[in-house]
Amino acid sequence: MRTYLQCVPCFVRQTLEAVQMASDAPAVHEQVMRQVLHRTSQMDLGDSPPIMGQAIHRIIKQITGVTDPYRDAKRRLNAFALRLYDELAPQIDEAADPVSAAVHLAAAGNVVDLGVKSGLDHDQIRSAVRSALDDTLDPREVERFRQAVAAARDILYLGDNSGEIVFDRMLIERLPHENVTFVVRGEPIINDATMQDAIETGMADLVTVIDNGSDAPGTILSDCSPEFRERFARADLIISKGQGNYETLSEEDRPIFYLLKVKCPVIAQDIGEPVGTLILRRK
Amino acid sequence: MRTYLQCVPCFVRQTLEAVQMASDAPAVHEQVMRQVLHRTSQMDLGDSPPIMGQAIHRIIKQITGVTDPYRDAKRRLNAFALRLYDELAPQIDEAADPVSAAVHLAAAGNVVDLGVKSGLDHDQIRSAVRSALDDTLDPREVERFRQAVAAARDILYLGDNSGEIVFDRMLIERLPHENVTFVVRGEPIINDATMQDAIETGMADLVTVIDNGSDAPGTILSDCSPEFRERFARADLIISKGQGNYETLSEEDRPIFYLLKVKCPVIAQDIGEPVGTLILRRK
Repeated sequence: MRTYLQCVPCFVRQTLEAVQMASDAPAVHEQVMRQVLHRTSQMDLGDSPPIMGQAIHRIIKQITGVTDPYRDAKRRLNAFALRLYDELAPQIDEAADPVSAAVHLAAAGNVVDLGVKSGLDHDQIRSAVRSALDDTLDPREVERFRQAVAAARDILYLGDNSGEIVFDRMLIERLPHENVTFVVRGEPIINDATMQDAIETGMADLVTVIDNGSDAPGTILSDCSPEFRERFARADLIISKGQGNYETLSEEDRPIFYLLKVKCPVIAQDIGEPVGTLILRRK
Repeated sequence: MRTYLQCVPCFVRQTLEAVQMASDAPAVHEQVMRQVLHRTSQMDLGDSPPIMGQAIHRIIKQITGVTDPYRDAKRRLNAFALRLYDELAPQIDEAADPVSAAVHLAAAGNVVDLGVKSGLDHDQIRSAVRSALDDTLDPREVERFRQAVAAARDILYLGDNSGEIVFDRMLIERLPHENVTFVVRGEPIINDATMQDAIETGMADLVTVIDNGSDAPGTILSDCSPEFRERFARADLIISKGQGNYETLSEEDRPIFYLLKVKCPVIAQDIGEPVGTLILRRK
């Protein structure tokens, strides 16, 4: 997916929020903001938004020297989501269709995106996740997903955010998880899940976890490691979580299910569903 | 007041909204956005925000050739506010203290600011204005205002927005208006009131209206005409409406009453009151 001009105010807002997390020095905030504005004035709108996101956060890391400004936030999100796990896992098992319930919760868990909404609090997460149990993904799409998972032998599950990864775990626990490999980002970027988050949330105890070798908030294949690209090319099913993975992989010709919550007007327009909608859609 | 980095996402959002009103051509939107981002990357944070606002809207006018993209919006706001006038004027006269009620309404009318909130609809304006009748400015400040007005012989009332100008009229009608001169911007800028709005709303039939000679969304004295600067220096009372005038005049050593609604976190921090507060404050 290309970048729209509507993405630019969001880039700028995100820059300010991230640099304020990384540094208390106004002069540093100003230096980062000026560089980002200059860089954005020259961006290629044919690139997907995570390419600009990657450039912005590289500028922040380079100027502040802080490689992971969201580390504390990620730890708190994981801990909170693990408490929700204890509450929600029994509800999934009591549902008429546990796999469908888990797919809904995994999509709803995509709300945990500090790139889109920095002021996200626990009540908002809890309420978004609870309402997912009433929400209705297209049941035919859920059925296609179930069949595709049953037929696959090598499933690559591309994670998105910390916190959210606990909801991915709830879903993967209800799939033939011996066939699943979970993928995290290669370096910290916003609150996206890294290997550290897979360890903190028990994902690494459940399935094989690999990283994609990249520091982008999405899956920019040309920026990923050769090992990951090879796995991506070989997998017989790919589950792509979240907006950043959708933005970078929406034009890839592979057997992909996109699973996400629509969180901004640009994605809403591209995907043809209003902000707030849960999406499960086969490429 | 200086510019804060928190103003920058707002500059960028406002650019996009304004250029989309001025042109339907994506290539024009992109050209404007790139120029504004580049210009913003070099801004002087010591300048007040309206200086950047002026630069942005000059870029839009120059590239699109449209000098007044908000003309239709301004006409609709004036017409809507005139309908509210018919409803509210009798309520003011029935109030225990009509001048105080009119001051509250004039402050609440400052909500009509498309620079801050482009999607503003009539219901939001109506509700903001109605709630002002219950709102309480500091009564001592209202009393000081009343006394200052009574003592003054040459009152300069610096208008802010179209639509809002009707609420300014309701207040001025209850002051010794033979002593009042109303000031509009010298050229169209966002939805700020110009001479055209003073004529459309009956302000020009009530008091002398002059323009300040500038196309900034505030009162940048060095950018105003010598005639206006002379009037500004001579007036024995100045009523400064809105955020833009506050931002540009907050450090001027003149007998000024600022009358506005706090509409953004930056102003809230500078002025020390939360977003949504009505302000009447003597310099």
